Amino acid sequence: MTVEETLMSSLDFAPLLASGLPPGAAKWNGLAKYSFVGGNNDGELVPVDDLIAAMSAVLKREGKDLATYGLASGPQGYRPLREFLSAKLKRTAGIACTADEILVTSGSLQALDLVNGILLDCGDTIITEAETYQGSLNRWTRLGVDAVGIPLDRDGMRMDALAAALDDLKRRGVRAKYIYTIPTVQNPTGTILPEARRLELLRLSRQHGVPIFEDDCYADLIWNGQRPPALYSMSRHGGVIHIGSFSKSIAPALRVGYIIAEWSLLSRMLALKTDAGSGALEQMVLGEYCPQHFDAHVPPLTCGLRSKLETLMDALNEQFGTAAEFDDPKGGIFLWVKLPDAVDTMKLYQAGLAAGVAINPGPEWSTDKAYGRSRMRLCFASPSHEAIRAGVATLAEVCRREFGVPERIGNVQRAQASGPSP
Amino acid sequence: MTVEETLMSSLDFAPLLASGLPPGAAKWNGLAKYSFVGGNNDGELVPVDDLIAAMSAVLKREGKDLATYGLASGPQGYRPLREFLSAKLKRTAGIACTADEILVTSGSLQALDLVNGILLDCGDTIITEAETYQGSLNRWTRLGVDAVGIPLDRDGMRMDALAAALDDLKRRGVRAKYIYTIPTVQNPTGTILPEARRLELLRLSRQHGVPIFEDDCYADLIWNGQRPPALYSMSRHGGVIHIGSFSKSIAPALRVGYIIAEWSLLSRMLALKTDAGSGALEQMVLGEYCPQHFDAHVPPLTCGLRSKLETLMDALNEQFGTAAEFDDPKGGIFLWVKLPDAVDTMKLYQAGLAAGVAINPGPEWSTDKAYGRSRMRLCFASPSHEAIRAGVATLAEVCRREFGVPERIGNVQRAQASGPSP
Repeated sequence: MTVEETLMSSLDFAPLLASGLPPGAAKWNGLAKYSFVGGNNDGELVPVDDLIAAMSAVLKREGKDLATYGLASGPQGYRPLREFLSAKLKRTAGIACTADEILVTSGSLQALDLVNGILLDCGDTIITEAETYQGSLNRWTRLGVDAVGIPLDRDGMRMDALAAALDDLKRRGVRAKYIYTIPTVQNPTGTILPEARRLELLRLSRQHGVPIFEDDCYADLIWNGQRPPALYSMSRHGGVIHIGSFSKSIAPALRVGYIIAEWSLLSRMLALKTDAGSGALEQMVLGEYCPQHFDAHVPPLTCGLRSKLETLMDALNEQFGTAAEFDDPKGGIFLWVKLPDAVDTMKLYQAGLAAGVAINPGPEWSTDKAYGRSRMRLCFASPSHEAIRAGVATLAEVCRREFGVPERIGNVQRAQASGPSP
Repeated sequence: MTVEETLMSSLDFAPLLASGLPPGAAKWNGLAKYSFVGGNNDGELVPVDDLIAAMSAVLKREGKDLATYGLASGPQGYRPLREFLSAKLKRTAGIACTADEILVTSGSLQALDLVNGILLDCGDTIITEAETYQGSLNRWTRLGVDAVGIPLDRDGMRMDALAAALDDLKRRGVRAKYIYTIPTVQNPTGTILPEARRLELLRLSRQHGVPIFEDDCYADLIWNGQRPPALYSMSRHGGVIHIGSFSKSIAPALRVGYIIAEWSLLSRMLALKTDAGSGALEQMVLGEYCPQHFDAHVPPLTCGLRSKLETLMDALNEQFGTAAEFDDPKGGIFLWVKLPDAVDTMKLYQAGLAAGVAINPGPEWSTDKAYGRSRMRLCFASPSHEAIRAGVATLAEVCRREFGVPERIGNVQRAQASGPSP
């Protein structure tokens, strides 16, 4: 191109882009009319008034500290928030750690990126529950990491299958970088790994020298409030990295998560955390609100979520009848649903969007795409009870039109059998 | 190691770490007694009461939206904040862009990472002002990118030197990925690139097909409030990526910055922004506070900063006499100081820390380490007037002890010549 031509035309960035970039994001078109996707919560259950009071109090007292990066608490995050986490995790999860072993992150997503950043190279292998969080699966794919999926049953990851997978990797001379697990309200299955399996998981981890990456970000949302101790707390030999979040227990838009790990790892993650600290206002308001209100806030929250789950399960029974199979999850904000084998949920997802219903298709939440083909994840925290009923009804119509199931007659029988919903 | 040995010992992560990691971060030891480092601001000038009022108002009205990722504004950030930025940048920088061309980031540091992420591969070359922001220099080093430094004079980057560098790269068959510039209150020199040079910079950029990366994060802090139009606004052919921040104009701990670029680039950056949005509270409070208060907030802020700069320059004249050379910057929060050639500021930095004084050694802010050897950056916004005087006095003592300059007698003469400070 001559100088004249260059001066006339606008600069083309295409030849300047870095190699191996993911495709560009699509323009955002707003939320679907009936949205059963994303970790969104119930707006009615955000403790707005208490958050305002906490924010006013902490800013009156410490607002001038906003002029200093990290609020003069250093790069690991606002110290009063880390002190609360240290006490709360001791009480609820049995974790004995000081504020110095905690790194506050921009949501648990930055925690995933930092843990992956210090441990994973392209070509590495990790082990994970075969059905798991889409965001984790996408990260491994993007990093060129091989994810070995371990099947689950109603008590979470199957230890016999994990032992077999570890032995197989050993035979192949492969040392996995970590075993990723969401043991406490698993995403998407809603299972909780019992204490006996946690002990076996820790034994296998140590025997094979493969650490455990424990993602506990739904652990506060258990219907009966009873949780097993965290894997991090049960390990007498280290080897566990623990992450959590306030996204599900307070509000996802806050973007406050945390990592608990030994300093030799936290110091490496800090070197990769190039954002000069996460948002101060979120850390300040949580550091002020939580010590006083967190424990009282959770039970009404889980109660409200449980009520929406029941509305969703009733609506699925009424609209899909026997065509929708699911287990009653022990907590959380999502339901993992099996549809007849004839249903391809990737196609149902597209047809549903066109009808104003958003779902998470199973293949995006499974290491085994064929296994996930007829499954879907439905998030129930954000839509109203009415929207849940109307959305499921619309989804059933779309599914019937596209795949011939559910058959109308089956629903009527099932609806009569199960009786009218509350 | 046998199974038994493994079970007895704690898991060693060292062999599991990813390749090419930077060294681990050091434990944080708090701020120095006299801290002249970091982009910290004056705590007395944070508009705490107005921020509390804005936060209360916006949370009362929209607090329930915290239950939805991105506040239902989508991944580019809280729309009212982007609308404010669109209007403010049109008024102050001449930039005509809609809210859809703005991506809100976690400070301008995430903006640097996202722009670098879509454009830079290891082995690439970029062009930059020879004296520039340490955080940008560190990123290029970490990415394995070759940074070609262009000398500055009192009007910023020298266009004759830029033209020569571009011609030289062309001869070598190298197309730089971008020309990085901080044209409006340059860091660390405090210079402002005049409009004529901006036109020449744009001409050279288009002639060589090398885009401009405009970092404008200090542009609000100009003593006389007069700024040239942004390079982004002057380009009639695109080819410019513009970033800015609220860290210097409101408060650094907020971590709110932004990127303005064409959608073909923003969409690629969005695909790399894996944090599900930046902190909502910061975006909400700024979206509420700024339309009403931003313009009135800035003049008293810059007036207070100017007054601290004068205290710093007076203290340097008193304590260092002719041994400290500097130009009076046109705005900002830092002063770039030349000490006698005998002074190695990397050594002065270490000796100063031991005496409770923190400075930025010149080599960390220069592409030419030898040129930066006897230079240092002093940030003056955070310490009080008294701390500035005491800190400079301590630094002069350390410098005299370590390098024999400044000589006491010189200071006395200079102090008498310049008269007592206000």
